[in-house]
Amino acid sequence: MNLQIRRVGIDTWRENVAYLHRDCPVVRAAGFQALAKVEIHANGQTILAVLNVVDDERIVSACELGVSEDAFARLAVGEGHEASIAHAEPPGSIAALHRKINGERLTKDDLHAIIRDVAQARYSKIELAAFVVATNQYELDREEVLHLTEAMIAVGRKLDWQREVGHGLVVDKHCIGGIPGNRTSMLVVPIVAAHGMLCPKTSSRAITSPAGTADTMEVLAEVELGFERMVSIVRDTHACLAWGGTADLSPADDILISVERPLSIDSPGQMVASILSKKIAAGSTHLVLDIPVGPSAKVRSMAEAQRLKKLFEYVAGHLRLQLDVVLSDGRQPIGRGIGPVLEARDVMQVLQGDPAAPQDLRQKALRLAGRMIEFDPDVRGGQGYQIARDILDSGRALAQMNAIVDAQGRRAEPPQVGSLQAEVLAEADGVLVALDNLRIARIARLAGAPQVPGAGLDLLKKLGDPVAKGEPLYRIYAQFDADLQFARSHAQKDPGCRIGAAEQLPHEFASGSLFSL
Amino acid sequence: MNLQIRRVGIDTWRENVAYLHRDCPVVRAAGFQALAKVEIHANGQTILAVLNVVDDERIVSACELGVSEDAFARLAVGEGHEASIAHAEPPGSIAALHRKINGERLTKDDLHAIIRDVAQARYSKIELAAFVVATNQYELDREEVLHLTEAMIAVGRKLDWQREVGHGLVVDKHCIGGIPGNRTSMLVVPIVAAHGMLCPKTSSRAITSPAGTADTMEVLAEVELGFERMVSIVRDTHACLAWGGTADLSPADDILISVERPLSIDSPGQMVASILSKKIAAGSTHLVLDIPVGPSAKVRSMAEAQRLKKLFEYVAGHLRLQLDVVLSDGRQPIGRGIGPVLEARDVMQVLQGDPAAPQDLRQKALRLAGRMIEFDPDVRGGQGYQIARDILDSGRALAQMNAIVDAQGRRAEPPQVGSLQAEVLAEADGVLVALDNLRIARIARLAGAPQVPGAGLDLLKKLGDPVAKGEPLYRIYAQFDADLQFARSHAQKDPGCRIGAAEQLPHEFASGSLFSL
Repeated sequence: MNLQIRRVGIDTWRENVAYLHRDCPVVRAAGFQALAKVEIHANGQTILAVLNVVDDERIVSACELGVSEDAFARLAVGEGHEASIAHAEPPGSIAALHRKINGERLTKDDLHAIIRDVAQARYSKIELAAFVVATNQYELDREEVLHLTEAMIAVGRKLDWQREVGHGLVVDKHCIGGIPGNRTSMLVVPIVAAHGMLCPKTSSRAITSPAGTADTMEVLAEVELGFERMVSIVRDTHACLAWGGTADLSPADDILISVERPLSIDSPGQMVASILSKKIAAGSTHLVLDIPVGPSAKVRSMAEAQRLKKLFEYVAGHLRLQLDVVLSDGRQPIGRGIGPVLEARDVMQVLQGDPAAPQDLRQKALRLAGRMIEFDPDVRGGQGYQIARDILDSGRALAQMNAIVDAQGRRAEPPQVGSLQAEVLAEADGVLVALDNLRIARIARLAGAPQVPGAGLDLLKKLGDPVAKGEPLYRIYAQFDADLQFARSHAQKDPGCRIGAAEQLPHEFASGSLFSL
Repeated sequence: MNLQIRRVGIDTWRENVAYLHRDCPVVRAAGFQALAKVEIHANGQTILAVLNVVDDERIVSACELGVSEDAFARLAVGEGHEASIAHAEPPGSIAALHRKINGERLTKDDLHAIIRDVAQARYSKIELAAFVVATNQYELDREEVLHLTEAMIAVGRKLDWQREVGHGLVVDKHCIGGIPGNRTSMLVVPIVAAHGMLCPKTSSRAITSPAGTADTMEVLAEVELGFERMVSIVRDTHACLAWGGTADLSPADDILISVERPLSIDSPGQMVASILSKKIAAGSTHLVLDIPVGPSAKVRSMAEAQRLKKLFEYVAGHLRLQLDVVLSDGRQPIGRGIGPVLEARDVMQVLQGDPAAPQDLRQKALRLAGRMIEFDPDVRGGQGYQIARDILDSGRALAQMNAIVDAQGRRAEPPQVGSLQAEVLAEADGVLVALDNLRIARIARLAGAPQVPGAGLDLLKKLGDPVAKGEPLYRIYAQFDADLQFARSHAQKDPGCRIGAAEQLPHEFASGSLFSL
């Protein structure tokens, strides 16, 4: 029996949902159950969807087939178009998913089949969650991670800068995340571009952090560029700082993240596949990867860092991506500001040579940029840092950044820092001996970051700083009173700062030869 | 800012969903992301919900807060009532869930906290799926399974038949499932009730099978009884065959099943907790548990069966449930009919002493009933089978069944067997040496069972039967042509039957002393 397609304006966030009225003859006859997987046939196409049963004629009537925004876009037919619906076979790769749930190893074909089904939106949110949990931790071995990465590249678009711009060497830089304020990309990109290297950087928005590079760059310029504009900007400026979401580079990854985010799961295998698939799809040939190590970082021990480093190196090596992994000090946030506007301010202070600029952000960016510059065959090993510093101190990096911002579209009225403020005070005399990245990030998010760009916090003390009782440790910024109160009450419960004796200060995890920046 | 509650008539199947318009000032200001977890405050209550962003004013306008049917019922306020919404803290037990995902052992308190949050609908579908996958297989040790079972009992209602009916000894029988046609409950219950034992049986509907006991009993009588009616029926007839879903016996289990079903996951720990929590909550004191073993059964080896048996015994022992586990022959379906109407016909043939009745169903039911009757302190060990047979052959079981059917409400017009039929024929001469339970179940479901009660199939040959090429192996019944074609085309690809030489017939897995029926 045929039904008429109706677009139901509900954003189900990358899940195809079909809405049928409880009195629809198809529901009654075929006995579809709620959450059943159904096949929708329309216009010669077939999509899988999850069924929601509706009791309200205003949403769908008995002879209509409602489809969520995602499903409507995927069907690409007009409202009122005829469609039919049937019980669906589970996607072909579900058997492989079950084998993984049961602890078995997956083959290359299994992983390609799963990722194809994921990219074609044939998995429900529940099935996606099952995949994410079943491949959590080290449950994927390195061969499986390699195949997962390849599969994720295979289902998306792949940029070819040689063809687009005539450059064969494309450098990139990535941090696995977890350190608030760590906005080195916005410094590194103009520096290496000023050196003449091609650095078309695509970044994500914040997933669980108070700001992603795309959120922070958006304070200054447009970041949702679309592919053609991005290419033309890169041709003109050698670089960009764009949001990667519009480029369709690793669509399966975007869908998996829609479940990893609410579950706060970010396992080594998924991380490696996600990062390397995006980088390779984006056409990068050389990558510097930053793995911060610290007690409240994503990676908490040197052993774990080494294991993760080897996994990245194994997969990158097989995919012919030149990879330089650096383990960095992840004991505390980088810079002062946390939240898009505040982090953009820190970045601009460094670019402008402002004496007030946070030195840790400057140093880290220079070291990373130096390593990228050393990918240049004409640069001697050990010379990169010096070259990066010259570019920054001469103002060429600032000029390059301004060119990039102008090319992307400078924001006429950049958002301002939140007008509501509250300071969090030290409760004792001593030395700041611990700063909890997770707690600090959480408080900044509660204050409204990144959705409210001007929300977040400004660190007034860093590790090793002496503090007196009653002195402010950091200042919270918010736009809404409820957010400010929420963030403040959390900070009062546990400010994420520990004051103690200087001897309690933890050593750098990643020090000496390991922290080989 | 306050919003007005609007009931959105979408059945989200045990998930609280909040619908906010994209232009709602709250969405814009607080920057809620799709699928964010939000807290809804109304009428002094707080519930957690998953956010769906809406672009259609007909569903919610910009100053309304739409809530799904589940959430509306849980809030228990009228439409138009004021409500506010905020970013939610994750449910308190999510930290424990993450520990489990990471392979750690959970404590009693962890499991109670998780199950409390599940029962209060504080978990999203994604989080439920994560829990189900993280506790899959033998990832819960027996202590954890015990605590999970206790926790599931603790959050639900518990029946007390001593208080309700004055009986201290309450017998029950359960099969872990996986064997089509295995409708022994509808025979066992009238037999043991006719012996004078209290047997208030609650059953589920089919989850992944072509018929559950509740679906099959519903062919004859009402099964959605509600608690008061069930008690009064049990008082009158010593028994019932009711659907357990209305009794709120193990609400967390019902919610977990809403995810286990679409994922087709049924792990040992979840199975034990699910079955034993339901039985203990239903007030059972003595339970005969049937674990079929066979190459296409849920349990495929004696080693696995023994392991599962010990897990059931461990948990039951600590919860003071008298448990008698029997391992039975699970190499093929029981009886002939598969699907609600066809299975009800088999049951009635056995009760009526019809010579055409399937003997395997009769024998299995008598053996199980015999074991239950031996829970009676006045019955000597070994006498149960004889007593059960006398009750069946004398017609007392039939009379008891009729009394139960009348008490529950006999269906005036019971559904009939599907009018469309197709036979699946043997492709060679020989002996039927394998019958695949899963394949047979799948074909019966494709034919429409259990949603179409008269759909399913009738086995015309069983293991060991000689067959000639072209002879029918089974007959498919359906109500809709599309279903018939779908089932038939699947049967043509693989009928689930293997014809070979008599020597290839597999031995009973559960034989001799192990199959101690």
